[in-house]
Amino acid sequence: MAQQYVYFFGGGKADGRADMKNLLGGKGANLAEMTSIGLPVPPGFTISTEVCTEFYKNDRTHPASLAAEVSANLRKIEELMGKKFGDSGNPLLLSVRSGARASMPGMMDTVLNLGLNDTTVQGIIAQSGDERFAYDAYRRFVQMYADVVLGMEKDILDHLLDQKKEERGVYLDTDLTAADWKDLVLQYKGAIKAELGIDFPEDPEEQLWGAVNAVFGSWMNQRAITYRKLNNIPAEWGTAVNVQAMVFGNMGQDCATGVAFTRDPSTGENYFYGEFLVNAQGEDVVAGIRTPQPINRAKNKDGELPSMEEVMPECYQQLVRIRETLEKHYRDMQDIEFTIEKGVLYMLQTRNGKRTAPAAIKIAVDMVNEGLIDKKTAVLRVEPSQLDQLLHPTLDPKAERTIIAKGLPASPGAVSGEVVFSADEAEAEAKTGRKVILVRIETSPEDIHGMHAAQGILTARGGMTSHAAVVARGMGKCCVAGCGDIKVDYADESFIAPNGVEVKKGDLITLDGATGEVMLGVVPTVSVQLTGDFATLMGWVDQFRTLKVRANADTPHDARVAREFGAQGIGLCRTEHMFFDAERIAAVREMILSDDLEGRQKALAKILPMQTSDFKGIFREMKGLPVTIRLLDPPLHEFLPQTEKDIDELAATMRVPASTLRHKVEYLHEFNPMLGHRGCRLGITYPEIYDMQVRAIMVAACELIKNNGFSIVPEIMIPLVATVRELALLKRNAVAICEEVIADYGVTMEYLIGTMIELPRAALTADEIASEAEFFSFGTNDLTQTTFGLSRDDAGKFLPFYMDNGIIEQDPFVSLDQTGVGQLVRIASEKGRATRPDIKLGICGEHGGDPASVCFCHTSGLDYVSCSPFRVPIARLAAAHAALS
Amino acid sequence: MAQQYVYFFGGGKADGRADMKNLLGGKGANLAEMTSIGLPVPPGFTISTEVCTEFYKNDRTHPASLAAEVSANLRKIEELMGKKFGDSGNPLLLSVRSGARASMPGMMDTVLNLGLNDTTVQGIIAQSGDERFAYDAYRRFVQMYADVVLGMEKDILDHLLDQKKEERGVYLDTDLTAADWKDLVLQYKGAIKAELGIDFPEDPEEQLWGAVNAVFGSWMNQRAITYRKLNNIPAEWGTAVNVQAMVFGNMGQDCATGVAFTRDPSTGENYFYGEFLVNAQGEDVVAGIRTPQPINRAKNKDGELPSMEEVMPECYQQLVRIRETLEKHYRDMQDIEFTIEKGVLYMLQTRNGKRTAPAAIKIAVDMVNEGLIDKKTAVLRVEPSQLDQLLHPTLDPKAERTIIAKGLPASPGAVSGEVVFSADEAEAEAKTGRKVILVRIETSPEDIHGMHAAQGILTARGGMTSHAAVVARGMGKCCVAGCGDIKVDYADESFIAPNGVEVKKGDLITLDGATGEVMLGVVPTVSVQLTGDFATLMGWVDQFRTLKVRANADTPHDARVAREFGAQGIGLCRTEHMFFDAERIAAVREMILSDDLEGRQKALAKILPMQTSDFKGIFREMKGLPVTIRLLDPPLHEFLPQTEKDIDELAATMRVPASTLRHKVEYLHEFNPMLGHRGCRLGITYPEIYDMQVRAIMVAACELIKNNGFSIVPEIMIPLVATVRELALLKRNAVAICEEVIADYGVTMEYLIGTMIELPRAALTADEIASEAEFFSFGTNDLTQTTFGLSRDDAGKFLPFYMDNGIIEQDPFVSLDQTGVGQLVRIASEKGRATRPDIKLGICGEHGGDPASVCFCHTSGLDYVSCSPFRVPIARLAAAHAALS
Repeated sequence: MAQQYVYFFGGGKADGRADMKNLLGGKGANLAEMTSIGLPVPPGFTISTEVCTEFYKNDRTHPASLAAEVSANLRKIEELMGKKFGDSGNPLLLSVRSGARASMPGMMDTVLNLGLNDTTVQGIIAQSGDERFAYDAYRRFVQMYADVVLGMEKDILDHLLDQKKEERGVYLDTDLTAADWKDLVLQYKGAIKAELGIDFPEDPEEQLWGAVNAVFGSWMNQRAITYRKLNNIPAEWGTAVNVQAMVFGNMGQDCATGVAFTRDPSTGENYFYGEFLVNAQGEDVVAGIRTPQPINRAKNKDGELPSMEEVMPECYQQLVRIRETLEKHYRDMQDIEFTIEKGVLYMLQTRNGKRTAPAAIKIAVDMVNEGLIDKKTAVLRVEPSQLDQLLHPTLDPKAERTIIAKGLPASPGAVSGEVVFSADEAEAEAKTGRKVILVRIETSPEDIHGMHAAQGILTARGGMTSHAAVVARGMGKCCVAGCGDIKVDYADESFIAPNGVEVKKGDLITLDGATGEVMLGVVPTVSVQLTGDFATLMGWVDQFRTLKVRANADTPHDARVAREFGAQGIGLCRTEHMFFDAERIAAVREMILSDDLEGRQKALAKILPMQTSDFKGIFREMKGLPVTIRLLDPPLHEFLPQTEKDIDELAATMRVPASTLRHKVEYLHEFNPMLGHRGCRLGITYPEIYDMQVRAIMVAACELIKNNGFSIVPEIMIPLVATVRELALLKRNAVAICEEVIADYGVTMEYLIGTMIELPRAALTADEIASEAEFFSFGTNDLTQTTFGLSRDDAGKFLPFYMDNGIIEQDPFVSLDQTGVGQLVRIASEKGRATRPDIKLGICGEHGGDPASVCFCHTSGLDYVSCSPFRVPIARLAAAHAALS
Repeated sequence: MAQQYVYFFGGGKADGRADMKNLLGGKGANLAEMTSIGLPVPPGFTISTEVCTEFYKNDRTHPASLAAEVSANLRKIEELMGKKFGDSGNPLLLSVRSGARASMPGMMDTVLNLGLNDTTVQGIIAQSGDERFAYDAYRRFVQMYADVVLGMEKDILDHLLDQKKEERGVYLDTDLTAADWKDLVLQYKGAIKAELGIDFPEDPEEQLWGAVNAVFGSWMNQRAITYRKLNNIPAEWGTAVNVQAMVFGNMGQDCATGVAFTRDPSTGENYFYGEFLVNAQGEDVVAGIRTPQPINRAKNKDGELPSMEEVMPECYQQLVRIRETLEKHYRDMQDIEFTIEKGVLYMLQTRNGKRTAPAAIKIAVDMVNEGLIDKKTAVLRVEPSQLDQLLHPTLDPKAERTIIAKGLPASPGAVSGEVVFSADEAEAEAKTGRKVILVRIETSPEDIHGMHAAQGILTARGGMTSHAAVVARGMGKCCVAGCGDIKVDYADESFIAPNGVEVKKGDLITLDGATGEVMLGVVPTVSVQLTGDFATLMGWVDQFRTLKVRANADTPHDARVAREFGAQGIGLCRTEHMFFDAERIAAVREMILSDDLEGRQKALAKILPMQTSDFKGIFREMKGLPVTIRLLDPPLHEFLPQTEKDIDELAATMRVPASTLRHKVEYLHEFNPMLGHRGCRLGITYPEIYDMQVRAIMVAACELIKNNGFSIVPEIMIPLVATVRELALLKRNAVAICEEVIADYGVTMEYLIGTMIELPRAALTADEIASEAEFFSFGTNDLTQTTFGLSRDDAGKFLPFYMDNGIIEQDPFVSLDQTGVGQLVRIASEKGRATRPDIKLGICGEHGGDPASVCFCHTSGLDYVSCSPFRVPIARLAAAHAALS
């Protein structure tokens, strides 16, 4: 028996099933399924995706047996419809549509009304009794076929239509008569002959094969290729072709067409939601020329158009029953298309409906309660990345907005405030109760207090992982970064948008961190609810996942937010942010300017009690959950001003000669700070800094253990280790201080000393490093920078180009590069565990909140991921997905 | 039978052999060997290194059987010497010396004259008939024993000696009498009692064990630990202890002591070279109080002291015979120590003699000609690193010098010239025929022309692989880098040395690139010869090596030098240096300032003919040898000025508004240029640049092929590739141009397109990259930077500390880090070959000229290394060593 290439559906029976999407495409599989479960589907057949693959393998030719199969199936349609393809009396018309495994909306071609020619049009006239309808259908077919199959410039035929309307003095297509359409069909065919030198095919068979080949051909059109690249769809998958009997919603007042969702796709509410149009074709519903009517009165407010429930009650009730059948059968909310031809309802499509995050959650939880699905399925129904919109306020979709610029959507949320241009100003204004947006060319660690004080941050430079973006995400604060459109003038305290609008200090703007849009004035927002269904679903999520989720948090406030979002510990507490506090930065600078150990120790002694109290606050909030504290990481020059003016000012404040300060700034200057004197390199050359920090951590822990009965196991993390000897040396120093403090307090406690794996060399020599490290935390931000040789602060000049041109598929700072960086994570995990089987492994880069990266961490056998507090629920859900699939 | 711990030698027989160095240490093994071959060696025994290992394993105790073994061997010495240890009449005295596997000169302890006490000293008096000698020996022993074994402060006994001399009104030790020495022995013992509360041990057995334990103990003294760390000697090796009968060269005018080399260690000339002193102990020869006499008249000039040949002709003739025996036996130049006691010659040591590079070469070649060794051995006798001194002029060792500062020995050679402070000045002065030294705080690519023009370069900042160091080594130009001692003042055109000396523009200084020393005035140099023995040896070298050696060369001149040094091709031709030429930089800047493709193409069109002629020059010099050309690598901002003043000047020259230029400089600014918009990232965003370069390469090759009958296979190298897609895109562009040019010229030729592997990700995904790359060149400079996360320009602040403290053993920019970076080289080689078995693999970082790294490349199976032209002979020799071992 020859291989089956064509799958029939119709008359309550189908060769295919819903689970045959790979072979039949999504549309074809669901048409078959609907047919099988007894729904009224116009009969048709699907040419499988294998034919597409063969088509491209064999130089755009088909398998030998295909023609006979198509022909046999066509006969079956004719039989069921009681019509004949190409017949002059009662002709069958067909639709030819693409249908790939994954939805590729609008990417590929469709031909409707196929089978019309000068003969069959007469049959349609006879059948419909409507000449105008028949010629309208005919000219639509010619137009579509010319475009899709013959590759004719659209403009030429469009121009003829415009000419005709002008000639007839009408504005709308609907004002043209049967004679007009008939004439236009003639004109169209003439233009095709003139332009392409061919006669428009009159033979329906020829039309059919032309359309089939055009659909297969459209798999490789530029739009489709780009879409696949963006959505990671392999070219090998191919598309199926669905050939189906045409039904018409535009044959009169007893005809209609509509789209519906079995539940509300915005809110998830369990009521039937949809729109329809009487006497219309599918494309008219979405074209927006006529206002569609609601299908029922459920949410139909006074004064709105009459609903289908009222206008076509029988069909509506049939549709309601179909809705129930579909939901029970598919156990998911469905997005359906239907057409009513002369009072008869036909289903043209069903598929799982797209939905907003709140809807996804509500539908999943409701369906569990309704017994339709189990909890696992409910958890898998919500896409982790969807949660992002849920965890931040969003702009009211109905509000008007004046967009003046667009940057990168660096940190979600929607905020409004008065524009300020410096961190100090942001802080000062915020203290007076004003809401401000901090606008900077770029931010630096010196701006932290201003970023804290501001509602949101807008920068002109920097990418998705620039300082502003990373810090803002960590704070859960809205940020639009790298908005190169705007020209910021600090001196003038203003910026100019590309359309020439000048925004001055104090002007109100709104940022949408989810889209990167910058708007004039205040745009109202809507906030969200984290209890109810959300809480229910997240409870199920935690039952299924095995990967732990921690948060990156540097302050007691962040720690509290992290716990509210379900973090199981802190995976990264950065201590340098504590150094930027106004009171402390003075002592830090005093330390940096000291030329001897004694001077540095004196300055550090001032910081010690403050750091101790920081850590106490965090330990207190985390109530015994693990806290990983990273010792000082950034290079010292980040704590000093860089411009001449700032240096002079600071020198005056500190009462040191400006030349001394300038000399120090020059001395500390680095060509590549990312690869410079930072991390453990500071800890080794200035051991007194880490000594102070370790002491602060241990004193904080011991006091809470001794006085408050806490149980704390601090995890002290040493950054930027490249060789085991660095870690050995610093661990020895740290252990000495830990033991001293423990002895001083007379408590019994454990502590862990571990390291970041953030340099390729550390990953490659993880077996050696694990002999000292009690835990590894993969710092995948820096690991990505060094593995790619890519500075995230500088990548903005070429990374967008790389993504646009498919050189890289994903920003490696957003989603972990599993091929390269991931290889190092796996190597280090294996080598680390080989040396120390119980070594704790986690990840604390930005990737900890990216669903694909979380999945990678799960399959790589890590113990936990750590991410921004606001991404903790996303990571929890992604971890559950990884465990369940 | 119990394990043997003690190995005897004496009376023409020995338990040990020369090849038992691991067990007996170098000294012990050679004493045994000399005894076996019949040389007159005072009898003794060696306690093996295994005892040292046991000693430390068992809490500083010895194996149970050791005491009996020592005792038995001591009896054998007594028998052969006819003396008795501790005897009052004819006492045996012993020396106790350390002796490790590897030479550790002066690092560990020695005790001489052991066995003396108030009783045995009488026997020495009786035997020697010299009371003064006996008490002098006694006090030396007490002094040495107190220091080495008892850990007494040296100063206390030294002070007693000074007091005695003062008291006796004499200046020299030799003016003290027997009574003085006798009294001092008493005083010493009293002081030991007072200070340490112990009696000085009178029992010779106790003395012996004290000394043995002290020698073992000295293995772990700080000096020894540091030395081992610096020389990569494992602590587990341990030291042996040599106990030997004392012989005295200071018992009268028929006594003497001396050291000699069997050939001249400076020149390698085949004559017996040495010095001796009549009536003296070994330490006197090196102490420099008395002027030693030559051992023969071979090079003895008029007016010099009489030689041993004249003074002690019999002993001298015996020594000449011994020299012959040793050279025939060891087949290498020996460094010997001897003592003559009362007319009897004793050999105390022989070992392979250290020698200068010219001597090493001459001796190796001579010994092959003399039939003593084969060519393989000759090749292995010359250390690759030694050649460095040979390939550059060096300071005349006899010349006086005033050292004013010391920096890093960044690029060897010795040069003098007038100080200038800018590249332009260097060029201008050089044009007038003056020799100049360019002094900069640091250099940048803008200084290249000045570096070319200068004799040498001195920088205040930057490490061994700073810009100045790398470029200077590439040019084979002397450079002292990172000389933080000097304060450079550009405005004043002067620098101040640490001793306050101010050096002004035009003052003469001399640099020694081999030591990092900076000297006032002109110090004369000596130059070297690359023909004769050197050429002979290098001919043998090339017979044995399998690894090819290429050079990094950017100009026809460098290419010529490289070929003279034996390079088999160019492994790295950097094209950016060609862009800095005064005429071209204008066009380059015009390109950078262009806002559109057209403008850039116009500017590039001006550069095309120049680049073409560059490549023609290089191809011409290389006469068909392979040439790998790297397309543009540095970020564009390197071609623009950075200071306000320079920007204004350039703007005026270019006739563009300063603001335009400033804006472009700001736009191009990068936080981490090393990880920024450079390499193939430029080639992808500005394809016209690479297009121009590829065209220039191909036109140059085609013209030479067509018009001059050359056979050229250009290797076009694309830098900084992180993903195979980057390479695929750029390769497609390059191939199109290559084919176009080949078609234009109508020639038949091959060309290769490959990539640098200089990012960890490239190494990790080498299997993918090899699907496009026809060759890999490991750019181990950048690969080291990214693998370690270490900027070579910034590492100067902590890398020296790391090396001083043993955190890293070697500067990873000097010698390839085999554990980390090497792992990536191996991974990439394996993966690359798996995809493309015939892929060409080479290395083109600075490491290509480092012997250890060359050996690594050989064992890793690379096809070639590429290094600075001046290091090509080193690499050739290292490759031969690797192949032979």
